[in-house]
Amino acid sequence: MAYNLLKGKKGIIFGALDEKSIAWKTAQQCYNEGAQIVLTNAPVALRMGEINKLAEACGNAPVIGADVTNMDDLKALFEKSMEHFGGKVDFVLHSVGMGLNVRKGKDYTDLNYDWNHKTFDISSMSLHRVLKTAWDLDALNEHASVIALTYIAAQRVFPDYSEMADAKSLLESISRMFGYYYGVKRKVRINTISQSPTKTTAGSGVKGFENFMSYAEKMSPLGNAPAEDCANYISVMFSDLTRYVTMQNLFHDGGFSFTGVTPEVLESMG
Amino acid sequence: MAYNLLKGKKGIIFGALDEKSIAWKTAQQCYNEGAQIVLTNAPVALRMGEINKLAEACGNAPVIGADVTNMDDLKALFEKSMEHFGGKVDFVLHSVGMGLNVRKGKDYTDLNYDWNHKTFDISSMSLHRVLKTAWDLDALNEHASVIALTYIAAQRVFPDYSEMADAKSLLESISRMFGYYYGVKRKVRINTISQSPTKTTAGSGVKGFENFMSYAEKMSPLGNAPAEDCANYISVMFSDLTRYVTMQNLFHDGGFSFTGVTPEVLESMG
Amino acid sequence: MAYNLLKGKKGIIFGALDEKSIAWKTAQQCYNEGAQIVLTNAPVALRMGEINKLAEACGNAPVIGADVTNMDDLKALFEKSMEHFGGKVDFVLHSVGMGLNVRKGKDYTDLNYDWNHKTFDISSMSLHRVLKTAWDLDALNEHASVIALTYIAAQRVFPDYSEMADAKSLLESISRMFGYYYGVKRKVRINTISQSPTKTTAGSGVKGFENFMSYAEKMSPLGNAPAEDCANYISVMFSDLTRYVTMQNLFHDGGFSFTGVTPEVLESMG
Amino acid sequence: MAYNLLKGKKGIIFGALDEKSIAWKTAQQCYNEGAQIVLTNAPVALRMGEINKLAEACGNAPVIGADVTNMDDLKALFEKSMEHFGGKVDFVLHSVGMGLNVRKGKDYTDLNYDWNHKTFDISSMSLHRVLKTAWDLDALNEHASVIALTYIAAQRVFPDYSEMADAKSLLESISRMFGYYYGVKRKVRINTISQSPTKTTAGSGVKGFENFMSYAEKMSPLGNAPAEDCANYISVMFSDLTRYVTMQNLFHDGGFSFTGVTPEVLESMG
Repeated sequence: MAYNLLKGKKGIIFGALDEKSIAWKTAQQCYNEGAQIVLTNAPVALRMGEINKLAEACGNAPVIGADVTNMDDLKALFEKSMEHFGGKVDFVLHSVGMGLNVRKGKDYTDLNYDWNHKTFDISSMSLHRVLKTAWDLDALNEHASVIALTYIAAQRVFPDYSEMADAKSLLESISRMFGYYYGVKRKVRINTISQSPTKTTAGSGVKGFENFMSYAEKMSPLGNAPAEDCANYISVMFSDLTRYVTMQNLFHDGGFSFTGVTPEVLESMG
Repeated sequence: MAYNLLKGKKGIIFGALDEKSIAWKTAQQCYNEGAQIVLTNAPVALRMGEINKLAEACGNAPVIGADVTNMDDLKALFEKSMEHFGGKVDFVLHSVGMGLNVRKGKDYTDLNYDWNHKTFDISSMSLHRVLKTAWDLDALNEHASVIALTYIAAQRVFPDYSEMADAKSLLESISRMFGYYYGVKRKVRINTISQSPTKTTAGSGVKGFENFMSYAEKMSPLGNAPAEDCANYISVMFSDLTRYVTMQNLFHDGGFSFTGVTPEVLESMG
Repeated sequence: MAYNLLKGKKGIIFGALDEKSIAWKTAQQCYNEGAQIVLTNAPVALRMGEINKLAEACGNAPVIGADVTNMDDLKALFEKSMEHFGGKVDFVLHSVGMGLNVRKGKDYTDLNYDWNHKTFDISSMSLHRVLKTAWDLDALNEHASVIALTYIAAQRVFPDYSEMADAKSLLESISRMFGYYYGVKRKVRINTISQSPTKTTAGSGVKGFENFMSYAEKMSPLGNAPAEDCANYISVMFSDLTRYVTMQNLFHDGGFSFTGVTPEVLESMG
Repeated sequence: MAYNLLKGKKGIIFGALDEKSIAWKTAQQCYNEGAQIVLTNAPVALRMGEINKLAEACGNAPVIGADVTNMDDLKALFEKSMEHFGGKVDFVLHSVGMGLNVRKGKDYTDLNYDWNHKTFDISSMSLHRVLKTAWDLDALNEHASVIALTYIAAQRVFPDYSEMADAKSLLESISRMFGYYYGVKRKVRINTISQSPTKTTAGSGVKGFENFMSYAEKMSPLGNAPAEDCANYISVMFSDLTRYVTMQNLFHDGGFSFTGVTPEVLESMG
């Protein structure tokens, strides 16, 4: 499918690690819909080199390394992007997150607080940093659209999600708050998309992930939402057809969020 | 804007009263995006004749009268539509509502319960009736999309909205419940869109509407969402780019729903 | 436990069918906490005679039959209650519900709409009728507290709950709306309590109930909330210690409502 | 009012700065209801000396200084408290918060991120630190109850609340997550109470606070909830009458949270 939905638009995509990433598929989808793209990720992630394949497939999109906790990096990213585009930015995808305690096997009831701070800085405050950078440079066009990826653990407890649940709650709050300010200032809209569990390289790291995917599948009337469809939904949120949607958390999850139980789950508990 | 988003799709639009109606603008937008349309409304509303202008502008779309509380009418509507389309239906817009107590000046604390039943039948149970009719006739294609228009009074009290608040709560519940069943059966998705107050002929009937529009404008970082943009958003929800969104209530309101207060409101209260 | 929490208070309890009923236990708890009680139920339910045991245990509380869909019955109920109390009413428990389609085995996608209307009238609009009756008679004291029992199916789909999900959504909306009006008028507060699945005579009627109880138990960090504890919670909401809580839906469910999944559920799906 | 609701219970109260504090009134209320109390606050706050008056009025309750961002301080606090009580703890009030950027006049779109981290550490992660300390020492009795004070800015944007909105979202998430774990382990329940704006020394610091109080008053059917009533509500949540309520955010706000608009607000906007 390609409709020229994003013809003439210019956007920055954070977090395309490899071809399983939602950000990767979003970049492709936006390019297919007519947008120009800049790709960015942490310098350490870029070293893998995978992203160059994506850049090529997106009309030789520039790849610019940036540590999302470093304001100088973010400033350089926006300045170079605007230079490349020859103008301001129309959309941004924030697909960034890392749980240091999760990664290092520390339980939720036994958090290391320095790592916890770092988790929030990378996964949540990074959205504030990105937006503040854009704000200070006046880098976003009127009606620009910003999407951050989140998860329903921000609303309900999924124990293995651990500190990332807190990080996503914080992310959603930042999205709402900055959405207010940027809406008033430049009609920019900021939303989060709360996606089904997805077998990305990042997602798979969570303990018991396979089992959980299968539970979520059984709890979703339409089944788990594929990453490709998430990319489609994001492209729609970047388009001019959704200009008055802002400060929302949008579930893209096949109905999981509003399903309390299903016969499949009850049966398998026999 | 036209992207061929709905090329080859076929849909039924309820509730296009006159050119101020959201349903009216949605019909136009869907037609512009490549869809075929059937228009329907209550026989009494059709007598105004306005809708024929719309039908013409939509490629001579058939206009089929149907009382949404009458199962025979709904059956005939779907049968005739499928005959016209030469196939099943891909989308349905439910934009139907009437508050009999509101209209007749009965306060919320003094409802006439016969009228209240009728209000629920027309405004809420009608969605169930439409879906049951489609279900029994197997009239919807896989991945079909159904949207019902609602209002935030379903979540918070707007006193003048009176019994319509209850009707919209009921409507949203029906949308969720049937969304589950139809999702499992045919991957059909059902959502509600909760739109800013809009100066339609229906909306304007509510007491103190002008004042309220101005309050909502001041409480929405992007301002009240125009009806045209609502039509755009609906068209997006009918497209294949949003296939995994279901059982949701989607606010299309310029941020009103997540804004607690604004300086403009505080100031004007001085 | 007894603290004299409700000393001097007078209340009407709807829906004490038998000793498994939450309303039954609430009546006892309120009496133990020092309140005077009037018991009421549908005339047909009173014929079982069980309620007389409860009346005796509550200091020979009057038992007054009332059909909740009949305004004359409700008027008589409030008038007799006030006469008995020698004054106005301080609290009301609405524990009333019946799903006619559920009872008669009609699926959600195949509702009989006459029965559906009756379901809403008995289960939801009855709360409006009770409150309107009290309003017209000015039968509630300042700071009076009204509680209606509801279920989380009003927020998320539990397929077997069927039309009762819609009825509970409607009930919660009515509680919110009337809560606004009665709050402004008399500082009366109106809330719903959303209780764990409970093995009452009514609850047990739902299909697959045992299985569901066990699922809910595994999804609740504290386990399913017992009926006795629900009665305790209701008594607290009737007391002067909760005077500023109104228009809320309060989950009394051991944490079920905010738990997305548990290891127990994942394991048993193995 | 005093009912002996908390007879035999032992609790720790954080954050009683002066007699306007909700924590101050809660300590008094809990003491009046029969509880034994330990008071704690930041060493710098204790230097004011006000708290000694409260300690005296609460049966010479010990006052133990503790920096909530310091794990050694928290450990000493719980150890000394258990020694004083001769047993474990039944309830904890977390009434702690400070917005460094707010205090130093930095706008939300111009946050200093070091201060922002500190804000989260003091206002949100402190709850995790308190609970982890209790967890490691096994310092809470079965069915113990923990309450943290929060504000509706966690759900909707109140621009002047700035970074504290994010801090409260984070706090509520931590409360939910730890509520799950502690519920499973010890049947401990953890909830947040979302209180009306209150003229405490802390609250008054927010810009335009008077104006906002008056707006909230007009938007609350029962008016703003007084601090004394909040203390009452907290005492109820500490009692055995609310044992199955956990992981909830409980609005104590006179109905503000579910009121969309009122005639008073519309009028004053003329």
